Amino acid sequence: MDKTDVLIIGGSAAGLVSAMTAKTNNPDKRVMMVRREEKVMIPCGIPYIFGSLGSSDKNILPDEGLLKLGVEIKIDTIASIEKDDKYCKTVKGEIIYYEKLVIATGSLPIKPRRIKGTELENVFTIPKDKVYLDDLKKNIEEYQDIVIIGAGFIGVEMSDEINKMGKNVTLVELLPRILGIAFDEEIAADAERKLIERGIKVFTGSGLEEIQGDKKAEGVKLCSGQEIKADIVMLSMGYCPNTELALNAGIKVNEKGFITVDEYMRTSEADIFAVGDCASKRDFATGKLSTTMLASTACAEARVAGLNLFSLSTFRTFRGTIGIYSTNIGDSSYGVAGLTEEIALKEGFNVVTGIFEGIDRHPGKLANAHKQVVKIIVSRDSGRILGGEVIGGNSVGELINVIGFVVQGGLTLTELLVAQIGTQPMLTASPAAYPLIKAGEAVLKKLGSRG
Amino acid sequence: MDKTDVLIIGGSAAGLVSAMTAKTNNPDKRVMMVRREEKVMIPCGIPYIFGSLGSSDKNILPDEGLLKLGVEIKIDTIASIEKDDKYCKTVKGEIIYYEKLVIATGSLPIKPRRIKGTELENVFTIPKDKVYLDDLKKNIEEYQDIVIIGAGFIGVEMSDEINKMGKNVTLVELLPRILGIAFDEEIAADAERKLIERGIKVFTGSGLEEIQGDKKAEGVKLCSGQEIKADIVMLSMGYCPNTELALNAGIKVNEKGFITVDEYMRTSEADIFAVGDCASKRDFATGKLSTTMLASTACAEARVAGLNLFSLSTFRTFRGTIGIYSTNIGDSSYGVAGLTEEIALKEGFNVVTGIFEGIDRHPGKLANAHKQVVKIIVSRDSGRILGGEVIGGNSVGELINVIGFVVQGGLTLTELLVAQIGTQPMLTASPAAYPLIKAGEAVLKKLGSRG
Repeated sequence: MDKTDVLIIGGSAAGLVSAMTAKTNNPDKRVMMVRREEKVMIPCGIPYIFGSLGSSDKNILPDEGLLKLGVEIKIDTIASIEKDDKYCKTVKGEIIYYEKLVIATGSLPIKPRRIKGTELENVFTIPKDKVYLDDLKKNIEEYQDIVIIGAGFIGVEMSDEINKMGKNVTLVELLPRILGIAFDEEIAADAERKLIERGIKVFTGSGLEEIQGDKKAEGVKLCSGQEIKADIVMLSMGYCPNTELALNAGIKVNEKGFITVDEYMRTSEADIFAVGDCASKRDFATGKLSTTMLASTACAEARVAGLNLFSLSTFRTFRGTIGIYSTNIGDSSYGVAGLTEEIALKEGFNVVTGIFEGIDRHPGKLANAHKQVVKIIVSRDSGRILGGEVIGGNSVGELINVIGFVVQGGLTLTELLVAQIGTQPMLTASPAAYPLIKAGEAVLKKLGSRG
Repeated sequence: MDKTDVLIIGGSAAGLVSAMTAKTNNPDKRVMMVRREEKVMIPCGIPYIFGSLGSSDKNILPDEGLLKLGVEIKIDTIASIEKDDKYCKTVKGEIIYYEKLVIATGSLPIKPRRIKGTELENVFTIPKDKVYLDDLKKNIEEYQDIVIIGAGFIGVEMSDEINKMGKNVTLVELLPRILGIAFDEEIAADAERKLIERGIKVFTGSGLEEIQGDKKAEGVKLCSGQEIKADIVMLSMGYCPNTELALNAGIKVNEKGFITVDEYMRTSEADIFAVGDCASKRDFATGKLSTTMLASTACAEARVAGLNLFSLSTFRTFRGTIGIYSTNIGDSSYGVAGLTEEIALKEGFNVVTGIFEGIDRHPGKLANAHKQVVKIIVSRDSGRILGGEVIGGNSVGELINVIGFVVQGGLTLTELLVAQIGTQPMLTASPAAYPLIKAGEAVLKKLGSRG
């Protein structure tokens, strides 16, 4: 039997950050993390163990920060949450009493059993499990024809990385374009062209009908009738929240299957919080339930939980998922923050958009300069910037965070236009043609002087 | 005789942007720019014509955007402003009437005549003048030992670029460290180490006593007594606002020599605006007169002027110079936005700072990963973030803009801690160890839970 002030279930990004925030904010409390894995995969790094890193050993989430702060780590699996008596039982038979509990059990890859052939050998999903991923990698090394089903961020990044291994990669997507509805059409089209340029075969607009083969996967048949040879089929068809523990304990989940939480990340039960992929999310603009799963959002939720465990603060709340993404294909990168034009229109927002194509260094003749396209989505009535999208080089990762803060701050077009930015020839676009500002000018032009 | 609605004097960044904003915002007005140079240098790109670009022809500010919008360009020099009759005379003898005038005459390099030897041959400054710079470059190519006096941003970038030409470069700075007081000591020290690693000799804490030589420069003698051989001496000892035209016209300048402007960028005279290096500036935090000259700030001022020419808007004002800088030395980059700790303390702010060193990719084992250090300066009473500094790789240019928006938005520590950011293995630090957020946590730890 053990007793801790804070018990965290799960050791991935959300578990790690809630443990660290809880301990930083409450140095006198005992904080314990129970996790299944000896070594935890950095979740977003998983695609890179195939090509760029070459090994899952280079993608380990370090324990150093946790241990230095004084967080205790137990490698074990929680078997049940006994919420009325405020303790958990582990698979190894331990009883751990808690004052505050944080559920950070993450998500599990979807493997649709209704599709024929998903149980064949050499059909894989992409879980956050080192042993499974090492086996997958060994298999990929032995074969040549790899088919990836599902062109979300993970499917796209996996395609590019396995392509780097010299394999023959085909990417299949049910929707008419890759990266789902994360981007507007013109941005996604650029990413798709880039993938194809790099030698990846892309089939959009047709889902998986069946996986062919007797014992092992030998090919896939799409709903369009197209057949593609495959030595290995990887399903990156989405993830579902891992809520079995919570459900068994009688903790409420919402209609999308996520553990219901409030803006402090509290569940339906006193003293139990949930964060990350398993916790319910709402869109920042519409307030609707969201199913967006992002490590970065998970970390923000984890900080909110860690800050509110022992004392609520109305200033330390989670105000809805903005969804700030970026990805990289070869030397090109793509980012999005907040609403796209397509989603804004679908939801009924009256928006006006502006787009500008510039260059990410200045002058553009500097080596390694990359085109930089910025699109912003502005609410016509309030002038508020609801979202933005970017194509560019390596600076896209932070440029989309610039836009993320513009959206989170509720900045208006006017505030953007008079904002100060910093520029440097080797590092950014020119101050006179900074695409984010120029996209704002394009909106101003549409709105007229009174915009 | 000609007549225009808007007349802009000067064709560099501030002139360009005020012209474009004026025309975008007032498409029916005639907008005319008068500038001296046939071809305008991109100001921040000047150091790069020596090494990375190899030619000033690759550093031309394009006219395309201006012409496409319908801005007229005249290559001529304004000889006088006749403000009572609202016209300008040019050197070529033309008379141009205006309704609104924007002075964007920029700045001129300082060449202190009290120092012996500044009039010798092979002593150069760094003006924004293509003909002069082409001559300077030709001279550098012929010689080997180059001494640069003044280790501000331009001196540092020039040193690194001329070093790339294979020259023997010595950088001399009066202050105890390079980059003046733009950075706190620990950040500037990292940049200095980087310069030295790359083979540049750096002498700090000693100013220039005299330039030695009979006809041509042969060496410099520092106040410390140190003598250094020099074939070429470059003075990057700062710039002074170019206000001769304004002074002759009776337009007010402030005690620092800048044309006095209000938050709409209006001068003391009706219908005359001033923007960029020649216009007065105030610090965003202290309200004190500032002498910071930055192309990016100039562009923000120019947008404010362009938006307020014909109709003032209290929402479109310039609220004081934040000063967002970045620079690059080899594969390392350095950025700063807002107040440093040193300046905050000197000005009497009660601040608490946090610093975190992480890696700009995740996992850190990815190729080309660079350490990333973020320091933030937080007001103890309000929790507002007053400034930040960054060391890192190429993403520093946009990361400092993230911090720029945090500072401009008046975000508090709490708002930073619960903010959502986007992360991607190839493009940013890890979501669980994003240095900007972790620097915030370091502040939280110092403040205690009630911070």
